[in-house]
Amino acid sequence: MGIPYRSVFFISDGTAITAETLGRSILSQFSGINFEPRVIPYVDSPERAQNAIEQINAATLADGAQALVFDTLVDPEIRAMVNSANAFNLDIYEGLIGRISSELGVEPDPHQGQAHDSVDSDTYKSRIDAVHFALDNDDGARTRHYDMADVVLVGVSRSGKTPTSLYLALRFGIRAANYPITEEDIDYHKLPKVLLPHKDKLFGLEISPQRLVAIRNERKANSRYASVDQCRRELKAVRNMYEDNQIPFLDVSEMSIEEIATRILQMTGMKRRIG
Amino acid sequence: MGIPYRSVFFISDGTAITAETLGRSILSQFSGINFEPRVIPYVDSPERAQNAIEQINAATLADGAQALVFDTLVDPEIRAMVNSANAFNLDIYEGLIGRISSELGVEPDPHQGQAHDSVDSDTYKSRIDAVHFALDNDDGARTRHYDMADVVLVGVSRSGKTPTSLYLALRFGIRAANYPITEEDIDYHKLPKVLLPHKDKLFGLEISPQRLVAIRNERKANSRYASVDQCRRELKAVRNMYEDNQIPFLDVSEMSIEEIATRILQMTGMKRRIG
Repeated sequence: MGIPYRSVFFISDGTAITAETLGRSILSQFSGINFEPRVIPYVDSPERAQNAIEQINAATLADGAQALVFDTLVDPEIRAMVNSANAFNLDIYEGLIGRISSELGVEPDPHQGQAHDSVDSDTYKSRIDAVHFALDNDDGARTRHYDMADVVLVGVSRSGKTPTSLYLALRFGIRAANYPITEEDIDYHKLPKVLLPHKDKLFGLEISPQRLVAIRNERKANSRYASVDQCRRELKAVRNMYEDNQIPFLDVSEMSIEEIATRILQMTGMKRRIG
Repeated sequence: MGIPYRSVFFISDGTAITAETLGRSILSQFSGINFEPRVIPYVDSPERAQNAIEQINAATLADGAQALVFDTLVDPEIRAMVNSANAFNLDIYEGLIGRISSELGVEPDPHQGQAHDSVDSDTYKSRIDAVHFALDNDDGARTRHYDMADVVLVGVSRSGKTPTSLYLALRFGIRAANYPITEEDIDYHKLPKVLLPHKDKLFGLEISPQRLVAIRNERKANSRYASVDQCRRELKAVRNMYEDNQIPFLDVSEMSIEEIATRILQMTGMKRRIG
């Protein structure tokens, strides 16, 4: 027998990010089924709809069970086509849009849609500026622009500072610098001098020794850098540094980058620059 | 009078990314209303629910119209609390989860949820590796690792290569290098030699002269670099390079980073490494 198997389609006339985000969030609540997801973006013509239908029907046939289809299609003709596939269809907008329209007293205009939201020039500029800020101020490369930072992430090497900085930039337009706490900083036993003037912008990342060892071993297997002793020593010193200086910090060992970024926003009260 | 005003809340016991993504996508279809969105993540205790209720009620009172609440709360007690606020409540999971449960013959387990999806170590590693790959191979800094790239983005300076590379890494785990086509490359009138062995991985970004002028002026106002003539010249040469070498390319002038990345995946047929 084995675990039951279901194909899942996330379909949209745009990027399909909405359909995929919601669909995955719902499916994560069902265990014991092997979901096989497929994303079909830009289904914006009868030809593309026909192609999607063929993929769906083939999956249903192969699985011996109806594929699940999450869609956010707005064109009625295209939506009707996709709904005609041999599948268990979940129209995400259905219901919600009608109720909101009644409450607001406004008719929806599906074709204006969200596609160009992020292209309005202020948003675009904030994102790009934030990305370049994160790059220019990554890994302690430069410290002289910390006065322009919204936050300065600190932590030991490979605690997740760089991806978190970039995610904060791309998703929230936040200018995040990051500074690695090195052995030299640790031996100094005090907050590195260069960070002192920006103490109120510091945010510490903490990580479990086990996780740090695993991540560092991917990078330099069996090195001192990746040894349990070394990782423990650095983490203990950094924890003391956070506590001695009242730096807010977060254990990111069990967190996705999305969670880390959202928690940082929540804990610091920082304002997003976009969205 | 002015434009009607509505507060909107995206509420979840996790990051609230699902509630926010779907909510924004729906609201973008309603024009003529000034939506004021607020995100409240991690509503996972009665105290936090009470705090959310107070924010919602205050907004409804101030606006003189019920706030819209998009939520993906799974705990019944907390959900009931938030539903008791003076608001127009849109329970996103309602309906969808029940239908899927019947179809699958499986009871949902809301508490397993998705929070830790991205922490499974393969996914985490793929994302982080891809981010570091993008950083190490950004802006033509190094070209010797292009054999390990999934794609090499090319284009003129400030056509969006860097943020697109980083987004491809963070969202899809794709290893994207990027290489700026410089004046020197243009004067050479052929594909830069360093790109020749990787011709099948190249993807070109195109941008309108107007947009490029605007973006470059933000960086170096009134420079030759940002002048209309210079931008036109570079763009024309690069367009010829794409066509002469059968490099697929995309006009990104009116696109968000999400759209650019999704289109590149679609046009190249590249496989995601995560999700």
